[in-house]
Amino acid sequence: MTLRVLGVDPGLTRCGIGVVDVEKNRRATMVAVGVVGTSAGESLDQRLLVIALAIDEWLDRYEPHVLAVERVFSQLNVSTVMGVAQASGVVIAAAARRGIPVALHTPSEVKAAVTGSGNSNKDAVTKLVTKILRLDAPPRPADAADALALAITHAWRAGSGAAVATTGPGSSSLTPAQRAWAEAEAKARRAR
Amino acid sequence: MTLRVLGVDPGLTRCGIGVVDVEKNRRATMVAVGVVGTSAGESLDQRLLVIALAIDEWLDRYEPHVLAVERVFSQLNVSTVMGVAQASGVVIAAAARRGIPVALHTPSEVKAAVTGSGNSNKDAVTKLVTKILRLDAPPRPADAADALALAITHAWRAGSGAAVATTGPGSSSLTPAQRAWAEAEAKARRAR
Repeated sequence: MTLRVLGVDPGLTRCGIGVVDVEKNRRATMVAVGVVGTSAGESLDQRLLVIALAIDEWLDRYEPHVLAVERVFSQLNVSTVMGVAQASGVVIAAAARRGIPVALHTPSEVKAAVTGSGNSNKDAVTKLVTKILRLDAPPRPADAADALALAITHAWRAGSGAAVATTGPGSSSLTPAQRAWAEAEAKARRAR
Repeated sequence: MTLRVLGVDPGLTRCGIGVVDVEKNRRATMVAVGVVGTSAGESLDQRLLVIALAIDEWLDRYEPHVLAVERVFSQLNVSTVMGVAQASGVVIAAAARRGIPVALHTPSEVKAAVTGSGNSNKDAVTKLVTKILRLDAPPRPADAADALALAITHAWRAGSGAAVATTGPGSSSLTPAQRAWAEAEAKARRAR
């Protein structure tokens, strides 16, 4: 059973999008990756529209089981955080419209899942994402790598049952597919 | 020529929505007002979905010429500002999808337009909105009155040509309807 996760690193200037298939044995394979960019010279409504249309296309084309989005913190640069939050709202609503569950993960959860340490830098995340997905070259820009890292993080945490603990306001329950996958993995662990 | 403005005071817990028709002579009439509320116990994706579906319904039913949204400031309470920004992103993208221009106005612009002073309190805004729209009772809750105040503010500023000055990133140009309306008003002023 393969879990397909669409990860999004939200932003108005660059919105990273990555799709990863993760198998029961945690093997992760990249399906697609991209970046949607909008210019600061465009009006806010046009920028959000470009992001909305892009995420619609990705959700429709790749039909992920779950959307994983970076949890936005207001501690970020004040001038950019509002745009990041607005973009994430558009992305989350697009998934919700399709009944696709949404999970939020913090940057340190992503770093911890992918590199083993919550304090790793961006280069370490990109390097490990490249290795985990067996890519020939690192995904560029960093937003693209971050989106893939988010997708990997979600699948690995969901698979280990950790996603249940993160459920609550701001995070969805497991999908039937995720639940079946988690149960299958739990069974496999017991059988060992 | 009547300008129809849909005003939104965004928020996850309470999202105020108001529709106002404004004539060339600045006479404003309320068409509809409401509040979309979601519970903090719901997941973020479900809360944003409720808001997305509601704004879709209002845009389709009332077909406004323009959407006026409160400009979100990060100086607000940190724990609520992210939700407000996410909700505003969903609302703005919904209008952009339909080709409806979006204008952002700050709380002090709204207070100044409606009460004559940028430092008025919420009660003064509600009182003046009630008077301007010739309502029998003040719109409740305050979010509903704020949405109507936003709509009035936009129409009056657009009518006086001020909207042109606020155009730029984060604010749209005048719609053809607004432009025609502004030109008609300018002509009427010259004829006096």
